[in-house]
Amino acid sequence: MPNLKKLTPVAWTQVDVDDAFWNPRIHANRTVTLPLEYALNKKNGVLDAYQWDWWDLAKSKPPWHIWVGDLGKWIEAASYSLAKHPDAAVATQMDDVISRIIKGQKEDGYIYPNPLPKSWRWANLVSWHEFYEVGHDIEGAVAHYQATGQRHFLDAVCRCADLMEANFGTEPGKKRGYDGHPEIELAMMKLYRATGEPRYLKLAKFFVDERRREPNYFALEAQAATRAGVPLTTWDGKPGDYHYYQAHKPLRQQEQAVGHAVRALYLYSGAVDVAVETGDGELLATCRRLWKNLTRRRMYVIGGVGSSQHGEAFTFDYDLPNETAYAETCANIALVFLAHRLLQVDADGEYADVMERAIYNGVLSGISLDGRRFFYANHLAAFPASGSDKFDAVATSRREWFGCACCPPNIARLIASIGQYAYSTSATGLYVHLYMGGSVHAQIAGQTVTVRQQTQYPWKETVRLSVDPQTPATFDLLLRIPGWCRRATLKVNGKAVALKNITRKSYARIHRQWSQGDQVELTLSMLVQRIEANPNVRMDCGKVALQRGPVVYCLEEIDNGKNLADLALPRQAKLSAAFDKKLSATVITAKALRRQPAGWGDTLYRPAQSATHPAALRAVPYCLWNNRGDGEMLVWIRQP
Amino acid sequence: MPNLKKLTPVAWTQVDVDDAFWNPRIHANRTVTLPLEYALNKKNGVLDAYQWDWWDLAKSKPPWHIWVGDLGKWIEAASYSLAKHPDAAVATQMDDVISRIIKGQKEDGYIYPNPLPKSWRWANLVSWHEFYEVGHDIEGAVAHYQATGQRHFLDAVCRCADLMEANFGTEPGKKRGYDGHPEIELAMMKLYRATGEPRYLKLAKFFVDERRREPNYFALEAQAATRAGVPLTTWDGKPGDYHYYQAHKPLRQQEQAVGHAVRALYLYSGAVDVAVETGDGELLATCRRLWKNLTRRRMYVIGGVGSSQHGEAFTFDYDLPNETAYAETCANIALVFLAHRLLQVDADGEYADVMERAIYNGVLSGISLDGRRFFYANHLAAFPASGSDKFDAVATSRREWFGCACCPPNIARLIASIGQYAYSTSATGLYVHLYMGGSVHAQIAGQTVTVRQQTQYPWKETVRLSVDPQTPATFDLLLRIPGWCRRATLKVNGKAVALKNITRKSYARIHRQWSQGDQVELTLSMLVQRIEANPNVRMDCGKVALQRGPVVYCLEEIDNGKNLADLALPRQAKLSAAFDKKLSATVITAKALRRQPAGWGDTLYRPAQSATHPAALRAVPYCLWNNRGDGEMLVWIRQP
Repeated sequence: MPNLKKLTPVAWTQVDVDDAFWNPRIHANRTVTLPLEYALNKKNGVLDAYQWDWWDLAKSKPPWHIWVGDLGKWIEAASYSLAKHPDAAVATQMDDVISRIIKGQKEDGYIYPNPLPKSWRWANLVSWHEFYEVGHDIEGAVAHYQATGQRHFLDAVCRCADLMEANFGTEPGKKRGYDGHPEIELAMMKLYRATGEPRYLKLAKFFVDERRREPNYFALEAQAATRAGVPLTTWDGKPGDYHYYQAHKPLRQQEQAVGHAVRALYLYSGAVDVAVETGDGELLATCRRLWKNLTRRRMYVIGGVGSSQHGEAFTFDYDLPNETAYAETCANIALVFLAHRLLQVDADGEYADVMERAIYNGVLSGISLDGRRFFYANHLAAFPASGSDKFDAVATSRREWFGCACCPPNIARLIASIGQYAYSTSATGLYVHLYMGGSVHAQIAGQTVTVRQQTQYPWKETVRLSVDPQTPATFDLLLRIPGWCRRATLKVNGKAVALKNITRKSYARIHRQWSQGDQVELTLSMLVQRIEANPNVRMDCGKVALQRGPVVYCLEEIDNGKNLADLALPRQAKLSAAFDKKLSATVITAKALRRQPAGWGDTLYRPAQSATHPAALRAVPYCLWNNRGDGEMLVWIRQP
Repeated sequence: MPNLKKLTPVAWTQVDVDDAFWNPRIHANRTVTLPLEYALNKKNGVLDAYQWDWWDLAKSKPPWHIWVGDLGKWIEAASYSLAKHPDAAVATQMDDVISRIIKGQKEDGYIYPNPLPKSWRWANLVSWHEFYEVGHDIEGAVAHYQATGQRHFLDAVCRCADLMEANFGTEPGKKRGYDGHPEIELAMMKLYRATGEPRYLKLAKFFVDERRREPNYFALEAQAATRAGVPLTTWDGKPGDYHYYQAHKPLRQQEQAVGHAVRALYLYSGAVDVAVETGDGELLATCRRLWKNLTRRRMYVIGGVGSSQHGEAFTFDYDLPNETAYAETCANIALVFLAHRLLQVDADGEYADVMERAIYNGVLSGISLDGRRFFYANHLAAFPASGSDKFDAVATSRREWFGCACCPPNIARLIASIGQYAYSTSATGLYVHLYMGGSVHAQIAGQTVTVRQQTQYPWKETVRLSVDPQTPATFDLLLRIPGWCRRATLKVNGKAVALKNITRKSYARIHRQWSQGDQVELTLSMLVQRIEANPNVRMDCGKVALQRGPVVYCLEEIDNGKNLADLALPRQAKLSAAFDKKLSATVITAKALRRQPAGWGDTLYRPAQSATHPAALRAVPYCLWNNRGDGEMLVWIRQP
């Protein structure tokens, strides 16, 4: 079997993150977000519902099936968090959640917190999320096992996976179904990797390959459900358009990222895993093709994807509206998952660039600094007067929770395991993808090598790494030179090293014999940059976004007054960056222009005559917006 | 009773229009649009349905109630057209339509082409459009009477009006209802003016005043309908939000133009009529207040209103999105109706400016040059790749017809009677509001005075008027100096007259003794103007619209290539206007700039570095767009 994978991520258990940027976020996550999620999961009835034998509408309304995957994500987040930062209360909650799920598992292994009549089981895969839910339980169980070494939850989800494997596949008598909401594919691959059980790999591959084979399973399922009286629901009340589910044609024939963005990216992520573990170059080529389409034509500058609220979906190439941007937090997180997987395959900084862009912008914007409030959609322009704030999913102010609360636990698990995205090992050494203070223990050259990072990334330009092999050894240290960086310099033990000849695919390879205490200093120039979008992005013509390091900036009303759309940043205006202690972030200032809003009276249109007046412009990191009250926000600024 | 009205419009029967701009439109209207509408009304079953005694679903599906007002508008258009341009075929069709309506009228006078069970009559006023339909029949009957002198149709609608008056009002035993779709108010006022019957005035006033008095009639109606088993439908499936119907509070308390735009403007138009005929200054103040809100904060530069497709409605102040602009043709026509009414009240050019803006832009854009295809929504930017062309109501190419075909007959009646908007008489003379070739016969100073206009308006600057009183007489000729005009000059019998001292409220008053053959020449400078929008219109910041005379311009893909959003028109670029014979219109050219679209490869974002290259810009009148094939269109052009 061909080896399609150049890198192996260093497991989250081997990475510690400890720096001024991440510490408050990790802290808020475990002291606010995790307990909040537990409380709300309890309140909305999901925890109790696991104990039900059956739907019993006389007793209570079953919890919305969409709520259920949140629990698995919560266990996953809690597992990551507790392993690094023990907390008795959260540990008790985690044990409670796991014991309820296990207690509620049916005798044959079936897990679903919304216990259907047995005849309804797997009868509406297109929209009941049965596998999606199990997938998140599996991800939670794998993390729990990695965190605690305890097998009881892992064993439980294995029994469920075994049941699924016994019932789904190409063998005679098995169902040829797959879930309307992909997720089980990547979860099953995690379970395979955790247990080594090849049946889980086989099942994941089946789910990927079977999707929209003819005859169309979803169409057959709909016919059977109608005959059997199973209540069928589809997202838009209309059957027949399978783009939403990425089931319009077999994955290998798909050319563009279409449909519900989270589903799409979970599917592609699972497909990369399957391709890598089965040596399937064709499937990998499919994933790379879809990656190109989505990152080169359908991605916001904040690393957000899925531009339309309608179907939470991709629309068409270069269609990236700003005020109505959806860019769901979950989709942006899923973009991190996919980028991380393809990065391992190709060891190409292109993937790390997108991963970093998403993390520092469209993902972190999804949670407030205090960890208490969340964005579901991540607009690139906010105009509260539009009234979209009335609707949680497209709000212009973060919310404590959502009817469908997929995003909060998703961001919780990402923050709790952020270190896992930072490092990989290759055959010859250690890759550093992301710069964050802390340390990694990696197996390199037959021993455990510890590398410590000291940095004030993403605000400061310098990253210091100390490399500590147990005994001197020759290996590579590969440092990512980010795509946004126009000028980088490197020193090894104080001595300058020219980057040009050692850099390939955005990684600078330092090949040498390393001894304890070796010091590496990388300086990544962080000049403020004006970014322009491809001319086909009609919304951004004549506009620039500001970026410094990996951080994309925005204007907020609190700094710049109302009517941000009328601010213009002249081409020649100097952009200054300075660290703002109150905000704990670097902010950008410039001399901009705006029309005099006074003097118009009640005039709506008039012959163009307005002079522009100097106006101080202050831009803050996009991910920090709406932490200082509500108001307008704008990413793309007019550049006259 | 105070006289609240300074002017009286000269009746359409006394005006002839004959010039190079209007002739082809009037011609297309009568040779294409009218027969097409007749054929389609016949085909969709409306004509037959008048003969039904009853809903009989076994026989056939009743025509959609929304279709029905179209027939009244068609009669109105046909009446105007036939009086000026006899056509035997259309005359036969008109007789056919009228005879079917009369034949279908119930014994008690009830007219509705979708004959409800008698117990359902007036039981769902909020959404069945019963009065709206009758209103259009009344408007048709009045026009037919004015055109032919025949009373049979007028008498029929009077019987229906009598029935309504006997059943609706504040007297004990009468219903206190009003229609969900205003229109009957202005129609009843037309009937009052045509017949002199004061009960019609009383009923119109009742409908205006009663709207959303407490108790809320629509709420009571819904309760009663539910009890009686009358099927209730509301536009959005939700009861309770009465803004859509302008029934959220009594009209006199309304501060902003809200809800369905056509309904709003029909209601306000009817209210102006009632106010004027009853000397009701408070009601007039309400209408002026709503006028100000809608024209100073909620109107597109094309004279279009109702910016959202959702509810075909107004949204909020300064919310005027371009690509998703709704600006329904009917709403823009209704804006002409309202402007025309308020113009008579105040004799202020402000109203004529809006009326003219709507006519030459957002109204005429609704019909193709050949009269065969129509826009329902009038976008201010078209991007066909968005796929909105799949939906008739928001199409980016004109359609032959619509499921709800309110707009085509509305524009047909406007074009057929365009002359009625051009002139008014005051106590002292003749007002000329609109410049168009042709003649008017007006009663001034105790005699019929004929004024002839010769002009190539809106393309050429000069308007020549010859004033022909039967005998020499002293009176005023008041010529509108349009708001868009920066420099006007006037000559009377070849002698220059200074405008400054004789111009008030945008009308130049020429007071003198007129004799047959007197010549007036008005020259209205038509420099191309860049128009800017109020800074609060966030969509138009940094952009300009081009306007010359009353005509607003746009860019089309056929002239300027794809990706119009990337074109920029520098502040200092010279704008040249020249008449294009092929298009029969003045076009504007300039040297613009655009980024090189090549060289981007698959890059989506990059540090701003693009140079701009010269690009020829060619703008055509907005009302003419989409007459030369489909493609992008743009009104607001970036001005760096």
